[in-house]
Order: sequence, then C-alpha cells, then structure tokens
Amino acid sequence: MSVQKPSIPKGTRDFSPDEMVKRNFIFDTIRRVFQLYGYLPIETPAMENLSTLLGKYGEEGDKLLFRILNSGNFLDGVSKAKPEGGGLRSEDGELRMEDGGQRSEGGGLKAEEEGLMDYRKLLPFIAEKGLRYDLTVPFARFVVQHQNEITFPFKRYQIQPVWRADRPQKGRYREFFQCDVDVIGSDSLLNEVELVQIIGAIFKELGVGFTVKLNNRKILAGIAEVIGEPNRLTDLTISLDKIDKAGFDAVMNELRQKGFTEHAIESLLPFLNFASETHINIILPFLKENLSGSQIGMKGIGEMGMIYAYLNDLSLTDSVEFDISLARGLNYYTGTIIEVKAKDVPIGSICGGGRYDDLTGIFGLKGVSGVGISFGADRIYDVMNELNLFPETIQSTTKVLFINFGEKEEKYCLPVLAKVRRSGIPAEIYPEAAKLKKQLDYANKKNIPYVVLAGEKEMNSGLLTLKDMNTGEQKEVSAEGLIGLVR
Amino acid sequence: MSVQKPSIPKGTRDFSPDEMVKRNFIFDTIRRVFQLYGYLPIETPAMENLSTLLGKYGEEGDKLLFRILNSGNFLDGVSKAKPEGGGLRSEDGELRMEDGGQRSEGGGLKAEEEGLMDYRKLLPFIAEKGLRYDLTVPFARFVVQHQNEITFPFKRYQIQPVWRADRPQKGRYREFFQCDVDVIGSDSLLNEVELVQIIGAIFKELGVGFTVKLNNRKILAGIAEVIGEPNRLTDLTISLDKIDKAGFDAVMNELRQKGFTEHAIESLLPFLNFASETHINIILPFLKENLSGSQIGMKGIGEMGMIYAYLNDLSLTDSVEFDISLARGLNYYTGTIIEVKAKDVPIGSICGGGRYDDLTGIFGLKGVSGVGISFGADRIYDVMNELNLFPETIQSTTKVLFINFGEKEEKYCLPVLAKVRRSGIPAEIYPEAAKLKKQLDYANKKNIPYVVLAGEKEMNSGLLTLKDMNTGEQKEVSAEGLIGLVR
Repeated sequence: MSVQKPSIPKGTRDFSPDEMVKRNFIFDTIRRVFQLYGYLPIETPAMENLSTLLGKYGEEGDKLLFRILNSGNFLDGVSKAKPEGGGLRSEDGELRMEDGGQRSEGGGLKAEEEGLMDYRKLLPFIAEKGLRYDLTVPFARFVVQHQNEITFPFKRYQIQPVWRADRPQKGRYREFFQCDVDVIGSDSLLNEVELVQIIGAIFKELGVGFTVKLNNRKILAGIAEVIGEPNRLTDLTISLDKIDKAGFDAVMNELRQKGFTEHAIESLLPFLNFASETHINIILPFLKENLSGSQIGMKGIGEMGMIYAYLNDLSLTDSVEFDISLARGLNYYTGTIIEVKAKDVPIGSICGGGRYDDLTGIFGLKGVSGVGISFGADRIYDVMNELNLFPETIQSTTKVLFINFGEKEEKYCLPVLAKVRRSGIPAEIYPEAAKLKKQLDYANKKNIPYVVLAGEKEMNSGLLTLKDMNTGEQKEVSAEGLIGLVR
Repeated sequence: MSVQKPSIPKGTRDFSPDEMVKRNFIFDTIRRVFQLYGYLPIETPAMENLSTLLGKYGEEGDKLLFRILNSGNFLDGVSKAKPEGGGLRSEDGELRMEDGGQRSEGGGLKAEEEGLMDYRKLLPFIAEKGLRYDLTVPFARFVVQHQNEITFPFKRYQIQPVWRADRPQKGRYREFFQCDVDVIGSDSLLNEVELVQIIGAIFKELGVGFTVKLNNRKILAGIAEVIGEPNRLTDLTISLDKIDKAGFDAVMNELRQKGFTEHAIESLLPFLNFASETHINIILPFLKENLSGSQIGMKGIGEMGMIYAYLNDLSLTDSVEFDISLARGLNYYTGTIIEVKAKDVPIGSICGGGRYDDLTGIFGLKGVSGVGISFGADRIYDVMNELNLFPETIQSTTKVLFINFGEKEEKYCLPVLAKVRRSGIPAEIYPEAAKLKKQLDYANKKNIPYVVLAGEKEMNSGLLTLKDMNTGEQKEVSAEGLIGLVR
C-alpha cells in the first residue's frame, strides 16, 4: 500500500480535545437552557431525500446542496428514466443525450459550450439523496411525517451539523453545527417572549455580551403597502436588509434599479430615517402614524407592542432593540423576526430566527404556525475564543495522573486508581514505566493538575505522595486523603 | 408548490424525544466513563476524501461507501482527466468512453452487458469525497495529520455517526452511531486491561448483563503456523470465526474447499475442540503445549497470561471468557482481540475491538501501536429496550407545567416560572389559555409530573395550587414551597 499524505476536504474541520472541551461547554449550556424551558430533543438523519430539500432554499441554495451518489450502479437510473425534454440513452458503452446536438432554448448553457453534456440533466437520475442544509426543513418534514405521534404545541430542540457547498472562507465552513429551538402549533406571542428569555439565559451563562434585534414581517409588509408596492415585499426587504452595511444611498439606488417608482422611494424615506432608531417608545408612535393605512402593518405593530409589554414585565428590554430594517433573507418568516449580534466582536449574527405561519404546508400540513431560533455554535465559539471567555476550569479533564515506576508499583497503584475513579474523579496511570520526565511532561501537556508518586517508600508506609503540578508542592496522603484533596 | 408526502431515505431514522432521552442516557454514560479513564474527545468531519477511505475496508467495504457528488459541474473532472486504461471524452453533447467498444478483460461487467458505460470508471472523476464508514480510519488519519500537536500516548474517544450503504434490515441501519475509545502510542498491555475495565464500568452503569470474549491474533497466527499453513492466517480465521454459528463440520468443510490440506485440518482438530472452552486455566496449558513450536504463538500466550493476571488482581475475570475461535474479520488487528456479547438477548456483539500495530502506517506514520474498542450504541439501545432497562427517572424532562388561564393569570405566573427555572428545574407554561382538559392532556402526554393551577383565589392569597399528576393530590404552596416539593 502506498503512503498518502493525509488531509480533509476543504471547508471541513477536525476538532482537537482542547477545542472539543470548549465546544461542549457551549453545546451543554445551550442544551441545558433549552431543557429548562421545556423543549425536548429530536434528531433527524444527515441525509434527506432530495425531494425534501430541493426548492426550499431558493435557486442558490439548491446549488449548495451536497448530493449523494446513488449506491451500486448509479447509472441504472439514467438508462431507465425518460426525463422531460430529452432523456439519456446508452448503447455500446456510450452515454448520449437523446436530444443529440439540439441545444437548449435560451442557449448559453456553459457546460454545453465546453462540449460537455449538461450535468444538470443527469443530476436527478444519479443522486436521490442530499446532506441536510439546515435543521428547519428537516424539522418541518419530521412534524408532518410524525404528526400523529406528536403532542402540540410541540417544543423541540435539535443540535446537529449541517452541510453547505459554500465557498469556504474565514469563519464560514462546509460543515457546521446549528442549535435550533422551535415551538410549532401555537400562535401565542408568549413563545416569542420565551425565545428572547432563552437567548438572554444562554448568553448570560456563556458570558457573551449581546443585543437582540426584533422586527416583524407584517410591519415590513405594511411599509410595502403604504409606499404603494404591496407586491414587492421581498425585493424591498432584501434591499432594506443591506442598510447597515451599504448605507442609505446604496439602498435607494438599488431600489431604483429594481424599478421602484420615485414616489415609492420618496415615501420610504421617513422609514429609512428610522432604521437607525432602536427604542420602541420612539418607533411605535411613528409607525402607528405612518402605517395607519395598512391593516397588516397595524397588526405587526400590535404584536410588537405585546411582546415588548411582556419583556418589560420580565425586565428584559435592556438588551433588546427594535430594528425596522431587519428582514433576514428567508422569506418564510411571516411575523416576528429575531436576530442576535455579539457586542465587542464584529461578526455576523450569532443567533436568529422568527415566526413562520406555514412551514409545514409544503409537506401537506396546513395552518400550523411555528416560531423558532437557531444558535450558530461556530460563531459563538469564535466570539468566546477571541474575548477569552471560556472558564479556566473546563481546560483539563483528567485530574490525577499516577506515575508508573514499574510492575510492583503499578500493582500498588491500580486499586487506588480504581477507588479514585469510583469516587467520580477522572484519573489515569501512565501505561508504562517511562522516564519520570516524560511522564511529567505528559501531565503538563494534558493540563493534569495532580500527579501521584508511589515508590518503595510509599509502598512501605501504605501512603501516596501527591504532587500539585501548579505549585510543585508535595504531600503524603492516604487514598481517602487524595480523593478529598483532588476533588 | 405541490404537496409532497414526506419520507426519509431507507435505512435512516428520525429520533423522537422519547428515543433521544434514552439514547442520551447511553451516550452520557459512555462519555462519562471514557472521561473517568482519562480519554479526551475529538471529532472529525462527516466527509473524508475518498483517498483516505478507499482500500481500507476491503472490496466489499469500498462498495458500501456513500460518495458525495462533486459540487458544481461534476462532469468537469471527467473531461479533464485521462484515467488509466481508457478515459472519457465528450464532444457535441456526448459523453463517450475512450476505449469505445473494447470490453474489459475478464469480461462480465454487468453494467456493460446492459449496454451501459461502466459506472466504476466514472466514479473517481465525479465524486472525490465520501461519508465516513467508521471512526477508526478517520482517527488514524487524524493522528498522522496532527502528530505534532498530539501528546502520546494519545487517549481519545469519539462518538459520532457513520454511514454504510448496507442492505437495510432489522437492527442494521445506514446511519448509526459508534462510540470509539482508543489509545495510540503505547505497547503496554495495561491499556487492554483498562479497556476491559471500561467495558465493565459502562455495562454495569447501564445495567446490561455482558460477557467479554478475549483472544489474541498472535495465538491464531501460532495455530496457522503449527498446522503448517503460516501464510493462510486470514483464510483460517475467517472460517474459525464461524464456528459458533455454523458448527464444527461446516468449518472443516469450508477449509477443505479453500484447499487446506487434510494434514492441516487434522492438526487443527484439537484446537477446534477447545473452541467451546472458555476458562484461561484450562486453555493456557493446552496452548502452551500445542503452540510450543511457534514463537509468535508463544508470544500471544504470554500476552494473554499477563492480561489475565491484571484482570485477576482487579477481580474482573468473572465476566471474561477466553475464546480461541474469536477473530473479528478486520485483519488490521495484530494482538489482543476483544468482543462483548449481551447476556439474555441474542444479538450480535455490542462492543468490539483490539490491538493494531500499524494502523497509521498507510498514512505515513510507522511503528505506532494502538488498541481500542467501539461501542455499538444502536444495539445497546435495542438490548436495553427489550429488557426494559431504562430507568423510569429519565422518561420526562419538564417537571412542572403552569396552566394558562388567561392574561392576568399569565402575568401572575411568569415571575414564579422564572424563579423555578432559575433554581434549575425544567418548567414551562402552556402558551395560551386553552381549555383546561387540553392543557392537562398536554402534561400527561409529555409525562410532566406536576402542574400549577393559579386563578382568582391564588392571585388573592399569593399562593399557587400544585397538583401531583400521578396521585391527583393538590396542595397550596408558595413559590419556594413549590421548588422544594418539585425538585
């Protein structure tokens, strides 16, 4: 067998013990808070049928799906199927498109220009499964598939990796973890309030400074209505969303290019002026006045008012900002929109979500409203690492290393080691009688705070010498004394 | 959008909250014990480069790899590459094999007989990544890739899903979890002993009756030597491995068919007779006598003797059996072989592993010995479910449900709810003022043991009515009293 230089696919990562301990600190905190609020865990398979995934994330999203080649002879499906607009035929070891030289209408298919078969026509026949792209669509699929076993309102959380064939870049990976928490089957705005509470509880426990931005899709719809562009909500919100980064003028220019009328853009101006305002007591009166002509807009205002009243009662408004430009691209949101930014670190959102009124409709279950948010564990990790927020205490896991001086000493130590472990203290013995320096190095590199030295003298006295690796201090102790000191 | 009936790929599973709680009980127990023994967690990506995976699991294994189609135009690689023995060329929208009608030598390629291009020749050009098939090969890759950051001996554990395109059947899935624990960079047999301790600790905590079977590849090699077939160790062990299921005669017939001489089979007879013997004190003397002519065989006997001496000191021999027919197909084992069977349930092994002297050699790091075992979480789950071994206490997670009687009552309850959660008790409020029966149903279905009823009377008294859902008993309590009772 030839020797290979090992590597992993670009955009993916290995996690070392040091990283894992920190990551688990984040996951465990998130999980504990989710459960404290009555959410229960589910998991779904890494692979979903492509029919479940395709068309749910827009054209761009479809391209970013990792597709899994059918097992066995993946060309089987090609010969059997007759796809619309020209199938694929194969004879004498050749694979040929049935429409032969005939080019697709509209021309310009890059693949064909290069003299290649259009790979997009092959796709449906050779790959029927894909890796999940997020946890929301699999959750919707889960709810519909298991609707008879589920108690509604269904409060679930899900912490699993997702995969996207994005161009890898700093802080963006092709495999990353999402931590989703959703409640489905309840219209109550109390659910939104609870999600803000959860955000507060998690980031407080992690020690991460944060700001929760809130908006409501209905307010955005109201703005589209009153500026006279009720049917262009998506175009409007995509542009509005950029105001933070691109600024005022760029947004107006983009809207002009999209064909919004000058009148519409002019009517939008007062709203744009309010995009940097964050306090509910200033924004609400303004919106009430300016959206009075839009029923849906007034509904959104009512919802925001109620949510704020709850948050006020719970003393949670300090870290909350109202942001009328907040849209979050995904156009399945229909009510509240939520986004969390880290203070002190210029990084994208570390958590986000919102209410969606008909997510399960595509899978056949209509009229079920849900609301949820997703925590981005990888970004939270980056923030905590940069700000040095991981507690010292989580750095090491093994508490005591028994130094190995040889066969006799080993036999003396093993029952003590077993006792230490039985008391719940992570401990180990160096597996062979290597040089003392090597064993102490091992303890240092693994951040083990205590070592036990037991040689001739200790075997005679029935005691152990315990060395504190930080202070260098040594003490003679019994097994029980050791457990008491180390715990 | 059209409505789809939702489903998941065959051989994969959704996990409901009930199942998750049980599965997490298993994972948490395994993780806690691993850490108690000084093992640290790592994780590797779901996808590995196919060059890392291919050729590591035999020809059968290669076929069971899930391959991920290259992103974008996956046919790009086809046009650029010139594979050995005939490439693929494409012109005018046609895709053609360069060796045209020329059949592969040896003939009989099923795909070509059906008039299809040989899909196996296409594979390397359209898929460069695959889903991991186990955790051992990714671990070996990890060790070599990160050798300069690792402190040896490296004690690591890894709990992640793996994927195999196996034919789905009862108890066998295409996505399943492995829980691997390995130490690499130490020859010491103390590591083997520690793994047996870990097995004992985990199954004791889970309440699963078990038997650990041990053998040593060197003993098998010794047997092959003394029967005069030193170069046919793999053939021999594959047959021996079947003795449990197929019986004595079948094994002898199989060896005959494989071309083992009558002399060899006759010499094997006394060993076959000992295959059902399990006690070290009977087997070791027999082996010492019969393998005295084989150096490697005697080495294996020495290793087994030492391991048993340790296990004896730790009073761990009761659940251990010596099984000279145990081989475990994987031919990278070079020393100790370990397998665990569940008592009381006729299911395959629930844990297994062994020592491998050169796993990292294929990736360029020679002479590093390792030993490890893998726990099959899915099978352990099935055993525990069948024997009803999951503790009652893990069934529910939310402890208290606050009944929602309306806006005023909600406002009264929310601060109490926050206090209950702050004390670490999972609690929730029904999100809307639904009918009482519906809310109580919700509590029952979710196995919530307590509900809080707070209406006019309670708001006047400042107390809460706590109802025990099991006994039906009701009590008036303060917030603090509630926390004390429910905890």
